[in-house]
Amino acid sequence: MFDTIAAISTPRGEGGIGIVRMSGDEALAILGKIFKPVSGKNIEDLRNFSINYGHIYDGDTLIDEVMVSIMKGPKTYTKEDIVEINCHGGYLITEKTLELVLKSGARIAEQGEFTRRAFLNGRLDLTQAEAVMDLIHGKTDTSISLSLNQLRGDLKKQILHLKKLILDVAAHINVVLDYPEEGIDDPLPENLVDNLKEVLDTSNVLISSYDKGKMIKEGVKTAIVGKPNVGKSSLLNSILREERAIVTHIAGTTRDMIEEVVNLKGIPLVLVDTAGIRKTEDLVENIGVEKSKEMIDKADLILFVVDGSRELSDEDIKIHDQINADKVIGIMNKIDIEKKLDTSKLTKVGKWIEISAKENLGIDDMEDEIYRFVVSGQVEDSSQKLIITNVRHKSALEKTNDAVRNIFETIDMGLPMDLIAVDLKEATDALGEVTGEISTEDLLDHVFSNFCVGK
Amino acid sequence: MFDTIAAISTPRGEGGIGIVRMSGDEALAILGKIFKPVSGKNIEDLRNFSINYGHIYDGDTLIDEVMVSIMKGPKTYTKEDIVEINCHGGYLITEKTLELVLKSGARIAEQGEFTRRAFLNGRLDLTQAEAVMDLIHGKTDTSISLSLNQLRGDLKKQILHLKKLILDVAAHINVVLDYPEEGIDDPLPENLVDNLKEVLDTSNVLISSYDKGKMIKEGVKTAIVGKPNVGKSSLLNSILREERAIVTHIAGTTRDMIEEVVNLKGIPLVLVDTAGIRKTEDLVENIGVEKSKEMIDKADLILFVVDGSRELSDEDIKIHDQINADKVIGIMNKIDIEKKLDTSKLTKVGKWIEISAKENLGIDDMEDEIYRFVVSGQVEDSSQKLIITNVRHKSALEKTNDAVRNIFETIDMGLPMDLIAVDLKEATDALGEVTGEISTEDLLDHVFSNFCVGK
Repeated sequence: MFDTIAAISTPRGEGGIGIVRMSGDEALAILGKIFKPVSGKNIEDLRNFSINYGHIYDGDTLIDEVMVSIMKGPKTYTKEDIVEINCHGGYLITEKTLELVLKSGARIAEQGEFTRRAFLNGRLDLTQAEAVMDLIHGKTDTSISLSLNQLRGDLKKQILHLKKLILDVAAHINVVLDYPEEGIDDPLPENLVDNLKEVLDTSNVLISSYDKGKMIKEGVKTAIVGKPNVGKSSLLNSILREERAIVTHIAGTTRDMIEEVVNLKGIPLVLVDTAGIRKTEDLVENIGVEKSKEMIDKADLILFVVDGSRELSDEDIKIHDQINADKVIGIMNKIDIEKKLDTSKLTKVGKWIEISAKENLGIDDMEDEIYRFVVSGQVEDSSQKLIITNVRHKSALEKTNDAVRNIFETIDMGLPMDLIAVDLKEATDALGEVTGEISTEDLLDHVFSNFCVGK
Repeated sequence: MFDTIAAISTPRGEGGIGIVRMSGDEALAILGKIFKPVSGKNIEDLRNFSINYGHIYDGDTLIDEVMVSIMKGPKTYTKEDIVEINCHGGYLITEKTLELVLKSGARIAEQGEFTRRAFLNGRLDLTQAEAVMDLIHGKTDTSISLSLNQLRGDLKKQILHLKKLILDVAAHINVVLDYPEEGIDDPLPENLVDNLKEVLDTSNVLISSYDKGKMIKEGVKTAIVGKPNVGKSSLLNSILREERAIVTHIAGTTRDMIEEVVNLKGIPLVLVDTAGIRKTEDLVENIGVEKSKEMIDKADLILFVVDGSRELSDEDIKIHDQINADKVIGIMNKIDIEKKLDTSKLTKVGKWIEISAKENLGIDDMEDEIYRFVVSGQVEDSSQKLIITNVRHKSALEKTNDAVRNIFETIDMGLPMDLIAVDLKEATDALGEVTGEISTEDLLDHVFSNFCVGK
């Protein structure tokens, strides 16, 4: 069906093992041109799902000593024949084996092309293919857990269930259209109305899970704001306690663009502009009203810090005015000193957490509150619930949701049933987009362009 | 014999596949605690050298969907049972599987510990173990080719051959000592003198191959020196032609310390301080006498650039005075303009290569000359000759060489044969150090500390 593709499937760099992977009808034939197993066997005689020790040769020239895995389709990742050559894991030596494989008849794989084939050959639906990438990029246990559920097919099953509910309705409408004597003016049977209600409710729940899902997957952009000398840098240091700070190096960027991600109970907090902030301790303290504005706009979560030991000042109020009430947690610092602050004018803050960054008091409470902010409305173990993490899924579900709401309008207006046929099609098509049953080359290019090469 | 070790064997980073590798008696038992093959088979029923699809669980919690390779000793890399878990290749998800393996009874492997076991269990000698690391770090085809020969056992065989030659002599001496009537005052038989001559000659050849070997392996540190405005930066750009510049990012260092390595006919030219030089084109031109001194000291090869279109200046002479005659190639630039330079006073330069960096004339000649400088005295295809690349081997061979020279002195002075017993032992011990037959924990720690984790 397809040509044979090849790529290096391990991360780039120096390590013990580097894997050159091939998939396609010619994979074994290409291997036959370049691999000599020490067993002396012919390639066609090597057992399926076996590992074979031997050497890679370019003509008479020895290229590497390797272990080769033979996996014949259709029970493979791509459903095609797959060969994996485990080379010595250096930059150049793995590259040389890849070059030889390409010279011998394979084509270099595009980003995500192995997984794209797994999708095109029907082994994974699109939500599962996307889960593979999310797994690789996963930064916390919670996000990995969500991706594993999605890879297992949880979302796929839910979407297929919703689709079935709508198709039941569509089947009824088709009968009505084909045989008008069946009662084109009769109302939709109760059980089918229930079907539509379930689609509406479930899609609502999924859509509204997206904000949490996105935060779990991509991290919660967190800004620490407050007037100078309220203790922002001490607070930052408390959050950045070495033992659980994950420093994520983003490839190809300069030092200044390194983001710091803190793993807070399985939720990645991405500290907005931390690299900049950390340059000097003083700098964070000097961030005043103007800089706060910018950080507030970027953030998913604002930690608004005030000094509990002083009277309220104009600056506190100015920063408070810029804050969005729906994404702020109030942090009252310096509670080890006598309290003088009256917070009654700071009405956007629903709840104040009292801490002393200096004395390490209240930090756990603050972290609990941050966790609650992110998972609010979710059960405690969010890994067990269906949460969508992908904006593509959200948009498609919104289309389904809109279409079903249209249908209810039609019903409420007492209009004839055949008018809902178009909306039914739109609702199912949108669900088909989620699973990839309905897809375009452009969509697939977009989805797989985020993959690594070799997956 | 040993406990069970585990590590991530693929390079760190995000990729399609990350491998967690275990080696030791408990490897399969540990796998049994955490892996459920989809085949439903028990771990002990999985075939040797098979690949198995399934899931990793921490208790009831799904950790990853994986492919597991089972390789039972003794026909494995370490001669122990080896298990390789191919995970989704993200930072965190591979790490989670490793953590689980460690929690289930494995110990984290030290750098190079898998290969150290291959050595301790007798699968590789020390020269072969060292070749594994050199392979992974290899930067050019030539260096990889040398490492592959060494891994195949070429050096090991040569060393064992030399050892046998000496042991024949030692056996004779022992007989003489045990049965003095055999003739303790007789000269050493001719064939045994030939043995010692062969050891002397071969060790000389190997020792003198080291300088080339080191340059092939680690690169030729190359400095471009010359007074301002002779065209050093144009020359640099000619050498750095994009298509074959390998930019080697050295892990954990800052931007300024990135070295640029150019692959010249299989020989890596490491351009000394290039990152600094390239910052501005002007800078390279402004490097004068003082900076030249520093670069000349560091370099294996000096490209001394002069301007052929101008008269000799004091500055040319000052730089010339600092140059070591044995590592310089003279480059006369600007030959597209009328020649005015008289090089007769620049006596340290044996040969001048005439080029025009601007007009791209003579660049190939220059590259041929650089290649000749590196491989001089070697046959053209240096991959076919035994070249040592490791200073440890060189030092040990020098000990052997010294001991054999002592023996010849003893013989020349007509002293009794029993006096050479100590030197014979020293010569064989030194050869045993090369192969690791004689080794200490300290030596092994030193050798394997340069390895990656997971190899």
